[in-house]
Amino acid sequence: MIPVVSLDQFDRYVDQEIQLQGWLYNRRSKGKILFLILRDGTGIVQGVMGKKDVPDEVFEQAAHTPYESSVIVRGIVKKDKRAPGGFELWLKDFQVQRPAQPDYPISLKEHGPDFLLSHRHLWIRHGKAHATLKVRDKLIQAIRRYFAQQGFVNVDAPIFTPSACEGTTTLFEVDYFDDQKAYLTQSGQLYMEAAAMAFGKVYCFGPTFRAEKSKTRRHLSEFWMVEPEMAYATLDDVMDLAEDFVYQIVQEVLETCPRELELLERDVEKLKKVRPPFPRLRYDEAVELLHKKGMEFSWGDDFGAPHETAISQEFDKPVLIHRYPAAIKAFYMKPDPQDPRLALGVDMLAPEGYGEIIGGGERADSLEFLEQQIQKHGLRKEDFEWYLDLRRYGSVPHGGFGLGLERTLAWICGNHHVRECIPFPRMMTRIYP
Amino acid sequence: MIPVVSLDQFDRYVDQEIQLQGWLYNRRSKGKILFLILRDGTGIVQGVMGKKDVPDEVFEQAAHTPYESSVIVRGIVKKDKRAPGGFELWLKDFQVQRPAQPDYPISLKEHGPDFLLSHRHLWIRHGKAHATLKVRDKLIQAIRRYFAQQGFVNVDAPIFTPSACEGTTTLFEVDYFDDQKAYLTQSGQLYMEAAAMAFGKVYCFGPTFRAEKSKTRRHLSEFWMVEPEMAYATLDDVMDLAEDFVYQIVQEVLETCPRELELLERDVEKLKKVRPPFPRLRYDEAVELLHKKGMEFSWGDDFGAPHETAISQEFDKPVLIHRYPAAIKAFYMKPDPQDPRLALGVDMLAPEGYGEIIGGGERADSLEFLEQQIQKHGLRKEDFEWYLDLRRYGSVPHGGFGLGLERTLAWICGNHHVRECIPFPRMMTRIYP
Repeated sequence: MIPVVSLDQFDRYVDQEIQLQGWLYNRRSKGKILFLILRDGTGIVQGVMGKKDVPDEVFEQAAHTPYESSVIVRGIVKKDKRAPGGFELWLKDFQVQRPAQPDYPISLKEHGPDFLLSHRHLWIRHGKAHATLKVRDKLIQAIRRYFAQQGFVNVDAPIFTPSACEGTTTLFEVDYFDDQKAYLTQSGQLYMEAAAMAFGKVYCFGPTFRAEKSKTRRHLSEFWMVEPEMAYATLDDVMDLAEDFVYQIVQEVLETCPRELELLERDVEKLKKVRPPFPRLRYDEAVELLHKKGMEFSWGDDFGAPHETAISQEFDKPVLIHRYPAAIKAFYMKPDPQDPRLALGVDMLAPEGYGEIIGGGERADSLEFLEQQIQKHGLRKEDFEWYLDLRRYGSVPHGGFGLGLERTLAWICGNHHVRECIPFPRMMTRIYP
Repeated sequence: MIPVVSLDQFDRYVDQEIQLQGWLYNRRSKGKILFLILRDGTGIVQGVMGKKDVPDEVFEQAAHTPYESSVIVRGIVKKDKRAPGGFELWLKDFQVQRPAQPDYPISLKEHGPDFLLSHRHLWIRHGKAHATLKVRDKLIQAIRRYFAQQGFVNVDAPIFTPSACEGTTTLFEVDYFDDQKAYLTQSGQLYMEAAAMAFGKVYCFGPTFRAEKSKTRRHLSEFWMVEPEMAYATLDDVMDLAEDFVYQIVQEVLETCPRELELLERDVEKLKKVRPPFPRLRYDEAVELLHKKGMEFSWGDDFGAPHETAISQEFDKPVLIHRYPAAIKAFYMKPDPQDPRLALGVDMLAPEGYGEIIGGGERADSLEFLEQQIQKHGLRKEDFEWYLDLRRYGSVPHGGFGLGLERTLAWICGNHHVRECIPFPRMMTRIYP
């Protein structure tokens, strides 16, 4: 029996005859030799077929089979240092499992973004799209491993919520049963606060939704967010966690995805610099920095993309900015005891202009303060009775943050647009395929 | 400095003085000794305080602090084999961080299910609810570890879908941008088929939604599902995977959660029997079995809960039932070449009457057959053009399955109702908290 071997196992079968089940990705010919580029999902290999190595009809078929046909080939695994994966396959047989139609829409030349997004189900077989999603898988593993090792319990937040956590204008509304309305979650944080009081350290990691009418390269209507939350934690604890977490996951991706990052032409030297300590700036200091750089910015405003880029350019590591004006932050943030105009919030900006990847902080733990805030923000108190219970029964200093998976992946991969960082992106104008 | 130690780290601090940050869970007194039950999210410990060990005012406060107050205590860790966690804490100090209101709604007596669900944010601090969610975390870890080790790539399916995978009556409709409509996913399978053609072996693991007007103990409107899919796989490969997967995750939970399963009063001997091979019955054989047991059942019908229970009672392991009548299965299932009235689908029934935990099978790989099916089922072909592309360009035999997380957890924990198996359950009549 000739073993069926996937490409990621080739190192165990050097100089042995194997079968490979995959697809014909590309082809070149040089005289009486065919170079058949084969993919099987785990990698890509060049198959070499000499005209005299196989019957004529097999050679003819291999020479004319359309790209993306499914094929089962037989051959000998050969080490080859020059080959991208380190191997070549010397072919002895080539059987077409199912011929593809000859009009495969994606060629290896450039296509426009809209065309590619409409063919996302095929695009993910190719080059950078494929590599990015492989890195995504490893990044998710790194994130989950980190929190499990640190003793965080995964507690999933609900997707259907009865009320809005941060305003209603960017909420997706759902027809629930019996003419009720539900909203799709924008953040699992409030639920993680309940869970932290039950489990100490928790995180949720799932899809979140924003109905923002934005068409920027940083926005998706559906994206994944990981949200750790800790009981008995202060803003400093939250910043320490965010710093160590981002450091560890970036290092793990560097270790597990060298080939993908190379294919993505990512300058990994820049990622290797992501080591603690990260610079920590007060909002006040960040504003000063912008002014020094000659940018117009009024104290009290929130940073826009150009400001974030300007700040992050000053450093070769992610930057933590903390103690924002309370007025631009969410109602549940704890005021700074040193200066109640400020909230104990923190954002992390990725380097190289990739913008905010983390938002978080210490949460208000006083019942009275939260009751005032709910009134001040015009929220319905009955929607938040359960949340207020957390302050009525066993309130403690606590905090956490949310990290956007796709923005973080865009930074790590060096991708310009977050839409390339999720398998099937959903945007204002895109819900297909 | 006296170290702050969490309960799950007590074994490293035997006979040492530590600080514990947590909550007062319960209290007994016996003469001049207080037994203060403390929890910190990672466990529960009995703190022992003698009247003469602390100043009078500390003893008085400890004797009267309301349950669920947050407290920081100091004491010496003592081994005690009779204690549930294996330790006692001999208290030297007891400081109230924030007193709870005295009307904490959950007492340690029995409450009705509706009351508990309305207080889910507090209920998860207690007993079986707490233990179940800890097992859930470990089960999720086991599931992800299994697929990562087997070379599956995690590719997330979208939540917003433009069309229905299995009929529209149980779909949740969302107002998307500009008066578009979107639907919440019922299954990531079709997208996993696209991903399997790109990555070979893939899985998604996220929330899925069913607007079923069911109030049974097995139904949630929002639940988590893990869906592996493999290229170059047949029905037998799918059954082999399902069997090995369920075996491995059950064994891992047995290893990682002995204390939680004990608290849940789960008969773990029954779970230890979950070892391959699992019985595999054709639908025909399952029908015959029902008839032998004297149940009325017509060939061609789908099994209901009583039938599933009757079948599963015959075995002490999960049962695989395969080759169902095509008419009761989804349009994308591959017909059995031996008998086209049958579809190459498979369900797995958990033992002890816990019902279906897996549904899957081999998918149709023929373009012509799928085009006919789409027409026959009255589906709009333009919605499925991308799906048909997978058969136009590189079709291969492929298949996979979906495993419902909460149903599987209900079985493993021995919980009667799936609503106890998700942190914040969503049902027809419940969307709060």
